[in-house]
Amino acid sequence: MNTPSPAPSTPHPGPLPEVSDWWTTAVSRIRPGEILLRGYPVEQLIGHVGFAESVWLMIRGELPTSAQARLLDAALVAGVDHGPQAPSIAAARMAATCGLGLNNVIASGVNLLGDVHGGAGQQCMEVLAELDQKAGASADGSGAGLDEAADRLVAAYRTERRHVPGFGHRFHPHDPRRDPLLELVAEAAANGAVPGRALAAGLALEHALAKGRSRPVPMNIDGATAIIYSELGFPPELGRGLFVLSRSVGILAHGWEEKSSGIRIKGPIPRRLLPSYHGPEPRDLPQQESA
Amino acid sequence: MNTPSPAPSTPHPGPLPEVSDWWTTAVSRIRPGEILLRGYPVEQLIGHVGFAESVWLMIRGELPTSAQARLLDAALVAGVDHGPQAPSIAAARMAATCGLGLNNVIASGVNLLGDVHGGAGQQCMEVLAELDQKAGASADGSGAGLDEAADRLVAAYRTERRHVPGFGHRFHPHDPRRDPLLELVAEAAANGAVPGRALAAGLALEHALAKGRSRPVPMNIDGATAIIYSELGFPPELGRGLFVLSRSVGILAHGWEEKSSGIRIKGPIPRRLLPSYHGPEPRDLPQQESA
Amino acid sequence: MNTPSPAPSTPHPGPLPEVSDWWTTAVSRIRPGEILLRGYPVEQLIGHVGFAESVWLMIRGELPTSAQARLLDAALVAGVDHGPQAPSIAAARMAATCGLGLNNVIASGVNLLGDVHGGAGQQCMEVLAELDQKAGASADGSGAGLDEAADRLVAAYRTERRHVPGFGHRFHPHDPRRDPLLELVAEAAANGAVPGRALAAGLALEHALAKGRSRPVPMNIDGATAIIYSELGFPPELGRGLFVLSRSVGILAHGWEEKSSGIRIKGPIPRRLLPSYHGPEPRDLPQQESA
Amino acid sequence: MNTPSPAPSTPHPGPLPEVSDWWTTAVSRIRPGEILLRGYPVEQLIGHVGFAESVWLMIRGELPTSAQARLLDAALVAGVDHGPQAPSIAAARMAATCGLGLNNVIASGVNLLGDVHGGAGQQCMEVLAELDQKAGASADGSGAGLDEAADRLVAAYRTERRHVPGFGHRFHPHDPRRDPLLELVAEAAANGAVPGRALAAGLALEHALAKGRSRPVPMNIDGATAIIYSELGFPPELGRGLFVLSRSVGILAHGWEEKSSGIRIKGPIPRRLLPSYHGPEPRDLPQQESA
Repeated sequence: MNTPSPAPSTPHPGPLPEVSDWWTTAVSRIRPGEILLRGYPVEQLIGHVGFAESVWLMIRGELPTSAQARLLDAALVAGVDHGPQAPSIAAARMAATCGLGLNNVIASGVNLLGDVHGGAGQQCMEVLAELDQKAGASADGSGAGLDEAADRLVAAYRTERRHVPGFGHRFHPHDPRRDPLLELVAEAAANGAVPGRALAAGLALEHALAKGRSRPVPMNIDGATAIIYSELGFPPELGRGLFVLSRSVGILAHGWEEKSSGIRIKGPIPRRLLPSYHGPEPRDLPQQESA
Repeated sequence: MNTPSPAPSTPHPGPLPEVSDWWTTAVSRIRPGEILLRGYPVEQLIGHVGFAESVWLMIRGELPTSAQARLLDAALVAGVDHGPQAPSIAAARMAATCGLGLNNVIASGVNLLGDVHGGAGQQCMEVLAELDQKAGASADGSGAGLDEAADRLVAAYRTERRHVPGFGHRFHPHDPRRDPLLELVAEAAANGAVPGRALAAGLALEHALAKGRSRPVPMNIDGATAIIYSELGFPPELGRGLFVLSRSVGILAHGWEEKSSGIRIKGPIPRRLLPSYHGPEPRDLPQQESA
Repeated sequence: MNTPSPAPSTPHPGPLPEVSDWWTTAVSRIRPGEILLRGYPVEQLIGHVGFAESVWLMIRGELPTSAQARLLDAALVAGVDHGPQAPSIAAARMAATCGLGLNNVIASGVNLLGDVHGGAGQQCMEVLAELDQKAGASADGSGAGLDEAADRLVAAYRTERRHVPGFGHRFHPHDPRRDPLLELVAEAAANGAVPGRALAAGLALEHALAKGRSRPVPMNIDGATAIIYSELGFPPELGRGLFVLSRSVGILAHGWEEKSSGIRIKGPIPRRLLPSYHGPEPRDLPQQESA
Repeated sequence: MNTPSPAPSTPHPGPLPEVSDWWTTAVSRIRPGEILLRGYPVEQLIGHVGFAESVWLMIRGELPTSAQARLLDAALVAGVDHGPQAPSIAAARMAATCGLGLNNVIASGVNLLGDVHGGAGQQCMEVLAELDQKAGASADGSGAGLDEAADRLVAAYRTERRHVPGFGHRFHPHDPRRDPLLELVAEAAANGAVPGRALAAGLALEHALAKGRSRPVPMNIDGATAIIYSELGFPPELGRGLFVLSRSVGILAHGWEEKSSGIRIKGPIPRRLLPSYHGPEPRDLPQQESA
């Protein structure tokens, strides 16, 4: 299985199994004249599956149903951009003025989508799974257990002065991406296309967070996409992976816009403004330090 | 226009135009409760445009026609993966075993898609534009000028012992992605959805490269996608940008597969094999170098 | 303080304090004709402090003593390389064949020095601090408390089947970098140049790990440099930061060697070897998936 | 030579030369219990060579003389930082607030040191070599040929409206790093430790650039370090590599300062300021675009 068929590129005649197996994969099989993606010949996929469907296929190993693809498409579209105030976008725009290829520009932006900047969706998926499990363990399925579990979870977060990931936004009183995403999930759950349990968990959390507050803490983009990716069966870590694919679009668009501007070596603030300084006053090097 | 409406996040009351203008953009407008992507409210886009359409909108500023979106989708799907032999994929897989978030894994892979590894499509787009211009300058539109110009271009490359980007493959005698991509372009050109001139230039080049050779130098994925991106009106540099979005899918799929394997600090070859060494034999540090 | 003196670059006349303060720093003050590094004019530093001393100054804010500089120099030299089997080095070498600038080559390698590949020193520093604290809380200063605390810590790790960071090596039965580094620390501690408590903690751990084993688990480079960086007063996270500076040297040397070789798009294994494949057998796209 | 001596890690008994040779190197030899750096056992280097000397050894293959090491040290120290206005520093500072390890923080900053932001030194080295070659070809060694060649080179750049790399600064009327660096080179040249030809070429260029101008175009840090690296025999591309090592120090110092601040997801400008927007006014999605 590991040795390709004879071809002009003179594939290896013998086994060397350990070297081939060191790089074994179930994602794709590349032989001379053949590209299989998860078993499907690439020439059959081209023109017949959409880009989001190919994302699902490559990660999950099977093609999505049309309902699954629609939800994935929606979540990917929802996250493409949030403006140059985001450090990932700003870093990519600055990179674009430093003489880099667009691949390096995109990598520079993507690199910043770490635990704090790009990880809230992943963390919210973990919370949704935890809440779902706790509610399932304590309830008779009526849903009352879910609300109680959500109340307890929120109370625990507040005691520890922690923020529940996926809720609240420093900028949007109401995140405009929440409603259309939740409507699509609700519709899919009503049709039996997804289980609906992550949606229920997310709404229970949102409800628990609003109790006793004049100004609620609404679900944000990370929470809404966490619900979708959870409903679709992705593990939490892939929540970040998918967000990276999505935000890469905005990073490219912004990087390209900045590159097209022709500015060189763009710093974070206009050139005639200077960072302030709070370090030591000017001082002379001690004589004894001379080499 | 630069100052947002009053909102809980207390936007700046005064102008500070230079700071706002330093980060001006036409890509998106983010205000409290509002996310406009190229003027469209994000809540209208979610569920109504596909991921590839959002790529087009964000980069180009307008929505694609359905024919344009179909070609873009096909080109993005065609490039998602070429296996772990590619250094970008291998680097991402190794990165996934080093304790990084998936954002850093993807960035590590994407960073490698430089001029040599990820730039052939971009370079081919430049060649197609050059050939189209030369043929247009010399011909009466009958197409004879195009073939002559292609012959001259190929001859010039051979004289300089250079490789025409987008043609030939070290691995595939016939790249399986070529035919389905060219069929889609030909169909779109026949329908008037795209001009068809980059397709003509690419085929002329392929024909010129085959002359007098027992084994032709067929168009590869870089050539076929270069034709599509050129037909769609993208500038060459965005050819690389779009390839990065496409290959990011495979990078994520492979990085995730490796991360799921649980292996730690994966090197390029199995651990009991060692790199060979051709440096100096063991030697002692000269005494006078001691500090 | 924030506004520079008048100069050809027309610095800002007024305050705009919030923008300047957003980028405030104590590391350096850059004004027209002036570069202060932690208060010292750069022209006084050039030629009078060594590179390792400048690392200390920039991070710590003050110049090191000569004993401190000597230990830092030794730790930085010790970590510069561990060969192309390391994924960070291999990724940089592959990157060097993909048409990138050396900055992108180095960044690609450095990016892989994550929690697992580059974080053991940092984690060991945390363990040393924890052990030092526990021993201090329980002992009368005779050192007996330290050994007991080390035994308990090792027992706890074994119960949890965890590996004590900084000890043991998958490759070296005895890491050749351990002894010269520990000798330098011991000498500095004997001279009163460093406290010696991290050294004591590290040796106690090594002793505790060896008990009842025919083959001991000796301290590795991460453990030995963790002792030095702890003795020098760096917080654990900077242990990784300093290791990155050190290993960047090897990454550059290897990347440059590979770039000079002229090979293009180097994969992880020779081209005629292929990764093995364990995914689905070739299959046709279901008809209903056609768009 | 490729097979290590028997050891606990069970090295490979047989040859597999092609796999070992794919990763061959002259930089280091790592075998169980052995780490050779350019032939020298690492345990002999630790404590006996400085960090800058190890940089030279790893890249060049031999140890530097003390005069060479002193120049390299000076150049590395000179470039460590130029403040948070530099996009590389600003990107690293923002990255530090996004939940990344310091390795990813440093990589994010280093990635931005591309042709435009980090390449001037490399480009200046190429100009110095070109000028030296032209002067050598045309002159009798008196130096008159050098001045004439410099005049011609400057005239050519002005005709093409290009900037001579390594000269002029958007910020410093006189770069404070120029004089101490040139003094060290002049001293080394006077002692015969370096040839002095790159210094002569650089001064000739500076002189040619000043002719007929009320305000001269003085040499900047890129020019001064280009002279040193050229005098030391580094190829131009390594000029960038060495600058990356140098600036990594400032990137780490700034990234750490920002990480220590505790701020999260730091954007380029304070949060209550917003980027301005010059894109399309708000508009509704066309009905026919609905899926």
